[in-house]
Amino acid sequence: MTSETSAAMRRPTHAGVRRAATKIAALLPPTPVFPVEIDGMTWWLKAENLQPIGAFKIRGAWHRLSDLSEAERERGVVGVSSGNHAQGVAWSARRLGMAATIVMPTDAPAAKLAATRDLGADVVLYDRPGGEDRDVVAAALVVQTGATLVHAFGDPWVIEGQGSLAIEAVTQLREITGDAPRRFIACCGGGGLTAGLALACPDAEVVAVEPEGWDTVGQSLAAGVPVPVSDASKRTICDALQPPVTKAINVDVLKANNVRALTVTNAEVAAAMRFAFTRLKLVVEPGGAAALAAALAGKIAPVESTVITLSGGNVDPAMFASILTEVV
Amino acid sequence: MTSETSAAMRRPTHAGVRRAATKIAALLPPTPVFPVEIDGMTWWLKAENLQPIGAFKIRGAWHRLSDLSEAERERGVVGVSSGNHAQGVAWSARRLGMAATIVMPTDAPAAKLAATRDLGADVVLYDRPGGEDRDVVAAALVVQTGATLVHAFGDPWVIEGQGSLAIEAVTQLREITGDAPRRFIACCGGGGLTAGLALACPDAEVVAVEPEGWDTVGQSLAAGVPVPVSDASKRTICDALQPPVTKAINVDVLKANNVRALTVTNAEVAAAMRFAFTRLKLVVEPGGAAALAAALAGKIAPVESTVITLSGGNVDPAMFASILTEVV
Repeated sequence: MTSETSAAMRRPTHAGVRRAATKIAALLPPTPVFPVEIDGMTWWLKAENLQPIGAFKIRGAWHRLSDLSEAERERGVVGVSSGNHAQGVAWSARRLGMAATIVMPTDAPAAKLAATRDLGADVVLYDRPGGEDRDVVAAALVVQTGATLVHAFGDPWVIEGQGSLAIEAVTQLREITGDAPRRFIACCGGGGLTAGLALACPDAEVVAVEPEGWDTVGQSLAAGVPVPVSDASKRTICDALQPPVTKAINVDVLKANNVRALTVTNAEVAAAMRFAFTRLKLVVEPGGAAALAAALAGKIAPVESTVITLSGGNVDPAMFASILTEVV
Repeated sequence: MTSETSAAMRRPTHAGVRRAATKIAALLPPTPVFPVEIDGMTWWLKAENLQPIGAFKIRGAWHRLSDLSEAERERGVVGVSSGNHAQGVAWSARRLGMAATIVMPTDAPAAKLAATRDLGADVVLYDRPGGEDRDVVAAALVVQTGATLVHAFGDPWVIEGQGSLAIEAVTQLREITGDAPRRFIACCGGGGLTAGLALACPDAEVVAVEPEGWDTVGQSLAAGVPVPVSDASKRTICDALQPPVTKAINVDVLKANNVRALTVTNAEVAAAMRFAFTRLKLVVEPGGAAALAAALAGKIAPVESTVITLSGGNVDPAMFASILTEVV
């Protein structure tokens, strides 16, 4: 592994986010920003569910993989993901002509497993409900093959790449309203996106929204070091937001930038998905609706120029149908 | 009624479409255009389901209502609609400070009825399944109140307004690919949108897609005059595309511009809605998915620079859920 591309040897930076944003602007059109009235104020929804892979994760994966050396590209990559990062890595690897192996949980949504395989990646399953450690499975693959590990959130390139969302949103909101975003409300799993947003816009406030019971980032911000979730058997519908523990690289960035965290319930997330269906005509997956759920539930006092991430839309049809027709 | 705003006294024109497009560009941001690969070719989807009212009908309604004289505005408007034109008229009337009464069928989707009332319009119901003539109901209201009738498709302003979609798409596609659209595939009820597209882009081919059994436009193009559907009890899931008969003003424009028509089945429409859900993360209503259905079913040979309208997304949650989980 070259020193340029070793994840252990560098910290994510604002300059890195800007470089990622330039690379991503050359690759992908900006995702739309839609206004929505909540409690008499206009909030701005960044529709990352409309990315080619249906989620913002394409950003970090592309920044990471496209920075690999020729030698590294030949050995391929290993990703660890509940489904959206998987597709980001698989999409980027295919575009760059590299091999990709993705470690995914047995209980990942069928749509995410199928989409990852359709993008040409090898999928290796691990037993998440049974408590198997995905990082151990991935490490073994890396040792076997010499491939580069691309972590879903605890990686400096991935953090920088996700931060490109904010650079894009600044340009878009300025065009529409003349003002830059003052606050980002973002769906949060391990803290890759929120760390990227904080690095991208140090003057804006960043709020991390986690599912109830899966608040590793909130707990870790309070403790100053990564704290695992206390009960990994607790049920959340937000399959994309349930890493057992965040990483020090994420906690460090989030703490340094005064990011705060809060949680939403399954019912609040389901209500936000129904709102997106009815009012916005957008398909948003549970984990992609967490930030909107916090806003709709009144858990964050409104301020002008707030950007809310709709992070992804990869949801199984049966799950979506049940959320539309029942109270989850 | 002033001569300037009498629907009976003018024909829709290309210049009128351009004027409508300028007015609408000042009012609404362009709806996104998304690429999609079908059979190895990139087609372009114009996402009108993302309009503020969830459908393209806001275009024609705005062009019509904003052209009314002060005296006409005071007397209000009467619209006739299965739901999307209703919302377009109600939205525009509220914005202009006018009263709006909408004649809607008893079997309109609950979401469309509720949204129209939420926009401040009075809703008068007629018995569509029982064969009541909505035009008669509307005419009586016009006589009573002196309001201006705003027909859903047989009106020169409405046709011109809908055509603004094409002017917008030309700019967008040129920015992305350098080429103007060569073909529009459009969902078709009474022929307002297709007539507008044909006037907007006389050099492009326009294909009208109707639901099987509700091909009043196809039949009328063959006959040269408006021909009613032969069996108005035939079931279609495309509630937005089932006027009993088109109008001469539409047939005249469509024939003069060599528009051709074809039909799609309920199963093809449902498949297109599932495609939009899975691949695009967009909520599209049955009538808004007809054009995409024709493309996916291979009913139109692909050509470069084809724009497909996703005309609307106003669908009841239970209906959408059943289409996601069953074969309709």
